[in-house]
Amino acid sequence: MRIGFVGVGRMGANMARRLKECGCEVVAVADAHAPAAQALAAEIGARACPQPGDVAAASDLVFTVVSDDAAMLSIFTTAPGQLLERGAAGKVFVNCATVAPATHLEVEQRVGRAGGQSLEACMASSIPQARAGTLYLMCAGARDAFTRVEPVMQKLASAMRYVGATGEAAKVKALVNMVMNINTAALAEGLGLGAALGLDLTMLREVFAQTGAASQVLKTDGEDMQNREHGCFFSAAHAAKDSRIAHELGLGAGLDLPLARATRAQYERMVALGLGELDKSGIAELTFKGRHA
Amino acid sequence: MRIGFVGVGRMGANMARRLKECGCEVVAVADAHAPAAQALAAEIGARACPQPGDVAAASDLVFTVVSDDAAMLSIFTTAPGQLLERGAAGKVFVNCATVAPATHLEVEQRVGRAGGQSLEACMASSIPQARAGTLYLMCAGARDAFTRVEPVMQKLASAMRYVGATGEAAKVKALVNMVMNINTAALAEGLGLGAALGLDLTMLREVFAQTGAASQVLKTDGEDMQNREHGCFFSAAHAAKDSRIAHELGLGAGLDLPLARATRAQYERMVALGLGELDKSGIAELTFKGRHA
Repeated sequence: MRIGFVGVGRMGANMARRLKECGCEVVAVADAHAPAAQALAAEIGARACPQPGDVAAASDLVFTVVSDDAAMLSIFTTAPGQLLERGAAGKVFVNCATVAPATHLEVEQRVGRAGGQSLEACMASSIPQARAGTLYLMCAGARDAFTRVEPVMQKLASAMRYVGATGEAAKVKALVNMVMNINTAALAEGLGLGAALGLDLTMLREVFAQTGAASQVLKTDGEDMQNREHGCFFSAAHAAKDSRIAHELGLGAGLDLPLARATRAQYERMVALGLGELDKSGIAELTFKGRHA
Repeated sequence: MRIGFVGVGRMGANMARRLKECGCEVVAVADAHAPAAQALAAEIGARACPQPGDVAAASDLVFTVVSDDAAMLSIFTTAPGQLLERGAAGKVFVNCATVAPATHLEVEQRVGRAGGQSLEACMASSIPQARAGTLYLMCAGARDAFTRVEPVMQKLASAMRYVGATGEAAKVKALVNMVMNINTAALAEGLGLGAALGLDLTMLREVFAQTGAASQVLKTDGEDMQNREHGCFFSAAHAAKDSRIAHELGLGAGLDLPLARATRAQYERMVALGLGELDKSGIAELTFKGRHA
């Protein structure tokens, strides 16, 4: 099964490296930033394609790992150079971007009209897990398409869950990231206030870890917040986007979600302040006194 | 060492039961709600006292487990019937209520003037842990006072930490509860939105547990939110009080803490709606569609 990638930022590139390492036939890669595709292609012995459509033509299975809803919708068209230009008969597209559930549904319809199949594969993990093949993958879409590509997907994941029809995985992902981002914002407030009160933050994190304040983000982001180490695993800009998706799902459902709203505002504030490329842990820059004007 | 308790609601009563069971000499108990003191006294063979001052007179070590700052300040006076009426020479008061750091400092000064010593013992655990002697205790105050009562305290705790001068434990406790309460509010939003989107909440909780959305409150409160089981371990009214303490510490430190503010508003809204006696997990009543008008 010939495999292609559209979107080879750090996530996509690491997924491609991992599949290559596992003996899969990764044949073609493309990226809106052409040098990224060229460098990866040289590294793993694939072809760097100028356009998404070239990747589709060369592949039976195409992973798309693009940045947002607009990027997803722009590549899934029949326009020159785009994924569906030459039809999609017999092909499966596995879409890994975090986008709105409605976008996955729209893509599924377009791919279906072009004779192919699409799946969601939402990732609740980050760059190191992509490289190691230990992603937590939530998949959705037609069951037979999932069965076809499952052997390949298994090489990327330490845990994989088929959650149902197209759109369902994106909902779950949106909720995972919503809760994760709120918990991250909460931790930044707790540590920021602890610092302002003169507490030893290492002690405070230890107490948090042993009490009702414990969380996964305490493990992944707590020390980084204390030490201002915000090299990017999951950018604040992504957190802002995900927070917006979740908040808008809530508005669409007629729910008032004040924590989701406040968290969205914090991450959007980071982007407005030019801090969007920090890791999401960089939200501590907003809550520690004197860290950011 | 003769031990007394002032405030024998569920926490205080369970601490007294535990100490009795461990062979300690629990001699006197009092409560603003006299029948609670009488019932406990009959159960454990102690004397039910009409006033806090009677407990102090009969004891070398007095645990106070009252509900809030006002209650703490009202019992630590020399007024008739109150704790310091007959002086406090040689006595140690161990104060377990969650109150503002400044209240612990004020109490320490009053007790010192009366010839005694006081300690903070902030509990980051709840009713079942009190009964089992597995509290997580954060203690602060004069080191020699701590050393005197430590053998008794050890019977109540599976983990105990001396964090420094009076007021410091209350700061840590305020931060623990602040982060815990925000994470709880976040979880209620995630599950409430999941329900509105038609997701299987058992599946969603499983995914949360395996991803960045995982937290201690997911373990303790997630299933209860799904099943609307809000029997009280830690009441929403307490969460409202703790959220206010933390938020006001933040305001006092000149920090803007939007998540703490939003969480305080949610718990205060529960109290306003008459839901204050539900467990804190009852915040899901606000975020699930149709659960509460």
